[in-house]
Parts: sequence; C-alpha cells; structure tokens
Amino acid sequence: MCLVSAMHITAGIWVNDNEPGLWEDFWEWVERLAPARPDYRHHRTGEDNGDAHLKRTLINHQVLLPVTDGRLDLGPWEQVFYAEFDGQRRKRVVVKVIGE
Amino acid sequence: MCLVSAMHITAGIWVNDNEPGLWEDFWEWVERLAPARPDYRHHRTGEDNGDAHLKRTLINHQVLLPVTDGRLDLGPWEQVFYAEFDGQRRKRVVVKVIGE
Amino acid sequence: MCLVSAMHITAGIWVNDNEPGLWEDFWEWVERLAPARPDYRHHRTGEDNGDAHLKRTLINHQVLLPVTDGRLDLGPWEQVFYAEFDGQRRKRVVVKVIGE
Repeated sequence: MCLVSAMHITAGIWVNDNEPGLWEDFWEWVERLAPARPDYRHHRTGEDNGDAHLKRTLINHQVLLPVTDGRLDLGPWEQVFYAEFDGQRRKRVVVKVIGE
Repeated sequence: MCLVSAMHITAGIWVNDNEPGLWEDFWEWVERLAPARPDYRHHRTGEDNGDAHLKRTLINHQVLLPVTDGRLDLGPWEQVFYAEFDGQRRKRVVVKVIGE
Repeated sequence: MCLVSAMHITAGIWVNDNEPGLWEDFWEWVERLAPARPDYRHHRTGEDNGDAHLKRTLINHQVLLPVTDGRLDLGPWEQVFYAEFDGQRRKRVVVKVIGE
C-alpha cells in the first residue's frame, strides 16, 4: 500500500476524475462550503488563510493507494490530485510504501 | 490493518451506526451539502452525475480498519458502509489486508 | 506507519495547526455545515446526537501518520487532534503501528 499525504495544513489530497469541468465544479464547491472570509479568528495571528485550513479538512489530506503485483490498484477513473488552498510557500507531499 | 476503498469516483465509504433513521439523515445531509444540479460544468462531457463526485469527496472514499488478534478492532457501533451516489454501473471495492 | 482512529461514531480525528483561534473557526464551521437540530430521524431512537454523526463524517475519523527513522514524519504544523462531538461516554482511540 502507498500512503500519499499532504504535509501542509492548507492542502489536501483529492482522488477523482481528471476532467477540467469537474475541477471547476470542485473548486467552486469547496469555496461555497468553506468560503474565504476576512473574519476568521485564526486571522488574529496575522494569517489570512483560515478558509484554507477548513478546505483541507473538508476534502481530507491523504489517501492510501492499494498496490497489487507492484502496480497501483486504482479504479477505472481514479487519479490522485494535490489541492493547494493557500499557496504562499514551497510545498511537500510525503509518500510511503509498505508491504508489496 | 485492512484497507477498504471504493474504486468508483462517485462512491464513498462511511463508517457509522447501522440505524435506518441515521441513514436517512445522512442521505439528506449529503444532498444538502452537495446537491444534484443540472448546471455542473462536468455535465458538458455528457455526464449528469457532478453531484456524485462531490458527495464522494465529502464523505471520503476509504477506511483503514485496525485488526487485533485476527479480528477487526472496531468501536462498539462502528460498521462499514458503501455509499453509491450514482449507480449506473457495476461497482467494485478493493480490500487489502496488511500485517496481522 | 501509525493509524490513529476514533472508535466512537460521534468523534473524529483532525490534523491541523495547534492554534486556538483556528479551533474556534473549526468548531463554528462544523456546526454550520452539520448543525445540531431536534428533528433528525436518528432521534426517533431516543438519541439526541444526530449532528455528531454527521460532524464525524465531515471531518473524517482517522489518520495514517507516516513514520521515518522511528519518528512521526509530520509537516511543519501538523498536529493530531481528537474531536468529540457528543461527549456523553468514556471514549477510546485505537492506535496501530505497522512497518517501521
């Protein structure tokens, strides 16, 4: 199995179809449920990315990919995406393979 | 540990109580947060299931079940459900056991 | 890798920054998307915590923490939190370490 996990608390991992219209729907949906707003309490620290922390929580920040016979065992349309909701820093993803 | 992962991008995995009232609450809640609508951009591809992709993202599509002494080590009310939000095709779930 | 999973179906696991303002934002956000209401169908069983089941689903109930050289390999601000949305009972979390 292969763990893919976003190491930044304003980023998530999304497993879905690689279709540009869907990306737009997805982005709009995340903004609707966890909107950018000036008045998050987190902003009292000087940050302005309170929404990004919520967006990451909404979509989840990691996925565990099954491996069979040395290959990723994904469904027919499953692809793994990194979704960055803040974007001000250099970003990292940790990947760990265990077992096969 | 045992990974259970929906292989279809319109389906999710839900771990909760096996209680029919809760299922209805759950279904209604998912519809409220990720409603079926005609105007998703994804529908320009000919699909009509844009909401199902969002619903899957909302509830997550996999769970990793701990195993202790050869048995699933679930909490007192935890049960694993497959939630299909589209339903037009034959569906598969991948199950991988690692370690114990 | 280290699995941390809430064993109670009204509790979740949250990985984010340890910042009190953010906790408040997070709590308010979860309440907005999965509000406490008297009329959940689940309440016909005598329970009054229908919202807690939905809140757990929203934020997810487990995380898989990567381990490198015997230490948790977390991002710079990642910390693991247990979020209890009901609170009427003694609670447990299962932790499983596999591989390194």
